[in-house]
Amino acid sequence: MTRFVDVSNMVRWAAAAGPERIIAGMVGYLEDDFRRWPAFDKSPRVASHTPFGVIELMPTSDYETYGFKYVNGHPSNPARGFQTVTAFGVLADVHNGYPTFLAEMTLLTAFRTAATSAMAAKYLAPRDARTMALIGSGSQAEFQALGMRAALGIETLRIWDTDPAAMEKALRNLTPLGFDVIVAESAADAVAGADVITTCTADKTLATVLRDADVRPGVHLNAIGGDCPGKTELEATILHRADVFVEFTPQTRIEG
Amino acid sequence: MTRFVDVSNMVRWAAAAGPERIIAGMVGYLEDDFRRWPAFDKSPRVASHTPFGVIELMPTSDYETYGFKYVNGHPSNPARGFQTVTAFGVLADVHNGYPTFLAEMTLLTAFRTAATSAMAAKYLAPRDARTMALIGSGSQAEFQALGMRAALGIETLRIWDTDPAAMEKALRNLTPLGFDVIVAESAADAVAGADVITTCTADKTLATVLRDADVRPGVHLNAIGGDCPGKTELEATILHRADVFVEFTPQTRIEG
Repeated sequence: MTRFVDVSNMVRWAAAAGPERIIAGMVGYLEDDFRRWPAFDKSPRVASHTPFGVIELMPTSDYETYGFKYVNGHPSNPARGFQTVTAFGVLADVHNGYPTFLAEMTLLTAFRTAATSAMAAKYLAPRDARTMALIGSGSQAEFQALGMRAALGIETLRIWDTDPAAMEKALRNLTPLGFDVIVAESAADAVAGADVITTCTADKTLATVLRDADVRPGVHLNAIGGDCPGKTELEATILHRADVFVEFTPQTRIEG
Repeated sequence: MTRFVDVSNMVRWAAAAGPERIIAGMVGYLEDDFRRWPAFDKSPRVASHTPFGVIELMPTSDYETYGFKYVNGHPSNPARGFQTVTAFGVLADVHNGYPTFLAEMTLLTAFRTAATSAMAAKYLAPRDARTMALIGSGSQAEFQALGMRAALGIETLRIWDTDPAAMEKALRNLTPLGFDVIVAESAADAVAGADVITTCTADKTLATVLRDADVRPGVHLNAIGGDCPGKTELEATILHRADVFVEFTPQTRIEG
């Protein structure tokens, strides 16, 4: 029997447990897994690209449990009434190869991305960080803000997006959660005075959303949008003067 | 909404439609797909190996529909009360990345393997073939027999397996389907006089189940068991004197 968690179950659980608590709780599990990093069977994800999006499979195994995630990324989806990202995942028993668990993972993908960012920030960001810049203020930005508050105690958000409607929505959603939200005039304005910068943009346009001149020394930069070839966010010179930390080098060499 | 076909639905459909008719019907679809081979986004499957088995993901896309199959192969499963192979698959709409269809694929995997063998035999086997040798007489052998009868008109099966119980089971299952089944004394005995030879064995022991000296010129050899590194079936010199046809060269170079 394969257990199944559908969208409505996942949404109900997330609402009951609270996104910020879920993300904070995930950090501990992620730390445990990163500590036993060599124990995993890892490979770059398997991507099928089209001009309008990508569909990816992400398998891994610790030789006890096998898991994979299916996930898509279609930047033009919201304009057509669809989510940018949908995902589901499967766990299987390595000993007989039988699938044991199937779950909706759209929300989990958002949580896990925010939790990984939070975990990295816990070790790499300035201790007294209170202000975060969000370049790209779509749905994922809200999860990132919750993750960074859980990890660092972030209080102030400086948001920027090329789409004014996305900024208005983020302002509307994040203010009631207790954040001091400042809508910036530009990416440069957003990062001015920020201790932590998160870039979470979606377009595959070889864009530079953050310029070297705008990034002051000592800031923690969490660049998560560059998850396909062609999805660049940072001016290359930023990487040359920064200490760079990636999750899985063979994957990172393909993307961003 | 993602449509779902579960095991019981699949079994009911297979029983109602009849395995031999299903396999024969699949050949037409396979021919259509092989004719537009360059239109597919193809890559070797992504395998996670352990000493007792493998779990694989097999994605492809024709840039309209994306699909992947999850499949395991665990040769020691039957002895522990599990199937050697379980599988399921997903279709998705490339335009928005949403999954549209989820189906049990254990039976479909058996059908598709038999249908691909049948399609290849239709073009490559001797016209007047009536006798088939089956080296390895597990569950897949029965589907292979049905496929070869649909494609070629096979009447006589000469079966061999290192496990006598597997031969008895194949004899018991295939005789009522109208085959003349001969239980052989050895692999060499099974292939004596056969026009078509199918090897469908499961062990990862770098075994030679078919020797060069036992294969006479002009026979059609359908070697399907070598689907993992270490799962060899043929003495290498057979390949050196044969015309070799494979489905996807980058895949075949990894395996068998």
